[in-house]
Amino acid sequence: MKEERRLIMLPGPTNIPDRVTRAMTKPLISHRGPEFAALYDSITEGLKYTYQTKQDVFVLTSSGTGAVECSISNILNPGDKVVVPVFGLFSERIKEKVTLHGGQAVEVPVAWGDVPTAEQIAEAVEKEKGVKAIAVVYNETSTGATVRDLQKIGEIAKENDLILVVDAISILGGDHLPVDDWGVDICVTGSQKCLACPPGLATISVSEKAWETMRKTRARPYYFDLVRIREHHSRKETPFTPALHLYYALDEALKVIKEEGLENRFKRHATCAKAFYTALEAMRLKPYPKKEARSNTVIAINVPAGVDGAKVMEAMKERYKVVIAGGLGKITKLIFRVGCMGTVSEAEILTTVNAFENALADLKYPVKIGAGVEAARRVFHS
Amino acid sequence: MKEERRLIMLPGPTNIPDRVTRAMTKPLISHRGPEFAALYDSITEGLKYTYQTKQDVFVLTSSGTGAVECSISNILNPGDKVVVPVFGLFSERIKEKVTLHGGQAVEVPVAWGDVPTAEQIAEAVEKEKGVKAIAVVYNETSTGATVRDLQKIGEIAKENDLILVVDAISILGGDHLPVDDWGVDICVTGSQKCLACPPGLATISVSEKAWETMRKTRARPYYFDLVRIREHHSRKETPFTPALHLYYALDEALKVIKEEGLENRFKRHATCAKAFYTALEAMRLKPYPKKEARSNTVIAINVPAGVDGAKVMEAMKERYKVVIAGGLGKITKLIFRVGCMGTVSEAEILTTVNAFENALADLKYPVKIGAGVEAARRVFHS
Repeated sequence: MKEERRLIMLPGPTNIPDRVTRAMTKPLISHRGPEFAALYDSITEGLKYTYQTKQDVFVLTSSGTGAVECSISNILNPGDKVVVPVFGLFSERIKEKVTLHGGQAVEVPVAWGDVPTAEQIAEAVEKEKGVKAIAVVYNETSTGATVRDLQKIGEIAKENDLILVVDAISILGGDHLPVDDWGVDICVTGSQKCLACPPGLATISVSEKAWETMRKTRARPYYFDLVRIREHHSRKETPFTPALHLYYALDEALKVIKEEGLENRFKRHATCAKAFYTALEAMRLKPYPKKEARSNTVIAINVPAGVDGAKVMEAMKERYKVVIAGGLGKITKLIFRVGCMGTVSEAEILTTVNAFENALADLKYPVKIGAGVEAARRVFHS
Repeated sequence: MKEERRLIMLPGPTNIPDRVTRAMTKPLISHRGPEFAALYDSITEGLKYTYQTKQDVFVLTSSGTGAVECSISNILNPGDKVVVPVFGLFSERIKEKVTLHGGQAVEVPVAWGDVPTAEQIAEAVEKEKGVKAIAVVYNETSTGATVRDLQKIGEIAKENDLILVVDAISILGGDHLPVDDWGVDICVTGSQKCLACPPGLATISVSEKAWETMRKTRARPYYFDLVRIREHHSRKETPFTPALHLYYALDEALKVIKEEGLENRFKRHATCAKAFYTALEAMRLKPYPKKEARSNTVIAINVPAGVDGAKVMEAMKERYKVVIAGGLGKITKLIFRVGCMGTVSEAEILTTVNAFENALADLKYPVKIGAGVEAARRVFHS
């Protein structure tokens, strides 16, 4: 395999600080000994900071999808109703998981590129009797749209005594999400997104209210049994063998976050996103989601008419060493997606915009070379 | 965290070759691009060699426990009967998983330290009508016992048209297991045992017969849905984000295995185990399992009367830099367990026996210092 280093601007996995990568080369330790307990403690502390929570937080050896299934399957008994706004591939997946685990998904249909409002959620909760939970994707990785009403949705959950499950996979650590303040009962993220850590781990917070519900769940899963995981938590270990080397990396990644400070980190992501959106405007390209929903961590862009998106991405990757992604599901060929995550800064944004402009120009698309880069640069230096 | 390197002689995770650890520092790539497809191909080839199979093989981002649950939950419809010999903690877990996923576990009870015979399995299959599968732990990590009748059990499965599920977590790659020849339909192992790779991945083989069964399963899981995993297999990618850096390590670990050759590897493990058992005899210590069942990869030893096992392990770790494990479940304090896996050789065995002798002597146990080391040495040089 050719080992050429490229700038990875995927909507996850994202670029990892070298010190995080190097952490994976630490010596092997027993996952049942005091060294692991110290590591476990340190990760727990880092996660609580990043989640802005005093609730329990755990690490799972799985992708984010596994962790979302975990959260759903731990709270559901047959027939339980869950309100699920569906506005992209990942919210569609939540609906599927609810059904698979015997629940009844109360779908709030929303156009892709748009996001659900608090009013829509409140209406669904009111209309359906006996709803148990609301499950929301905070940032739809498939459409680059962020649910800006999440805090209000938290209030609705609280007022109606519902469990609020939030899939924050492509956003936690990159944009505001004070888990306790916003009343999120179960919050899931993946290691390979805004935490800037290698893929393979997911993290999850669980509120007291969620624990009470789980205790009444009749058939919790085995590998993903949160109650069992909590029982081992007091011993500072995991029920099953953890991906130790990824724990080393996660611990280091969480230290990086704490050193930067959450607010600085959110501001950096927001500035990078603003620069990218401004560049797109200068390039006369259109973001896929509607304006108010545009994400600071995943940027989705319409493939311009007459352009072959795959060829653009190929040119960006091979000639300009920048890797971005296409769409997913029914919009696979219609959009580009760019990760604005983790270690992202002016350097990465300008390199990416430059590659994007060059690739479009190479393919004879009438782009004014340099306009995007200049527009982005100005945002960083205004 | 203190980063002192110790010899890890746990029954997994086990010592990892440095080149495998270093593989984790390779640059990030897209898990949806041609570089990943090449990695996927290389791993598939390495796994087929190690499993001695022409069947499909897959990698899961999870511990071995997750992968065993995966295999059980993919084949079961409500009420399906599975014959499960129970002779330790991990076979007990299989029974629990069968029940949890709606199946009916037909337990073949066997004393811990002993192993089921083909006759016992045949009897259970015959007695119960309409059995669908047999699920066997090939090597009970909790008792250090190997099911030497596995090939015969494969014949029973074949004769009765049953699915044979084998948990080979602490043995595959370290002792004989020709998956196709022995008629194993689903075979699971973990990355951190005899493959000498970091923990966090599990691998699984699936036969045509098992696929046919799975297609009829009404409620397969989501994250662990093998049919979905197979659909992505043809594109040489995983349905959900894989633990990329661990894939790098696994690929390297499988190359190490191929370079050594499976037969050489099995012989090395057998010789190391023989040396260790011979040393135990010289030290007048008794293995926990009965003689014919003694494992070549996990060595379980009775804690001698009057000795505090925890203190022995503490001394071995702190004074002599060797980490071994105690027991699990109901025999937690009654045994020591030593991993004889992965990179194990004369060096590791002699260091471990020496640490063991020293620790016992330090705790005033009447051991003839040097007798174990000399006995082990002789095995390597006979």
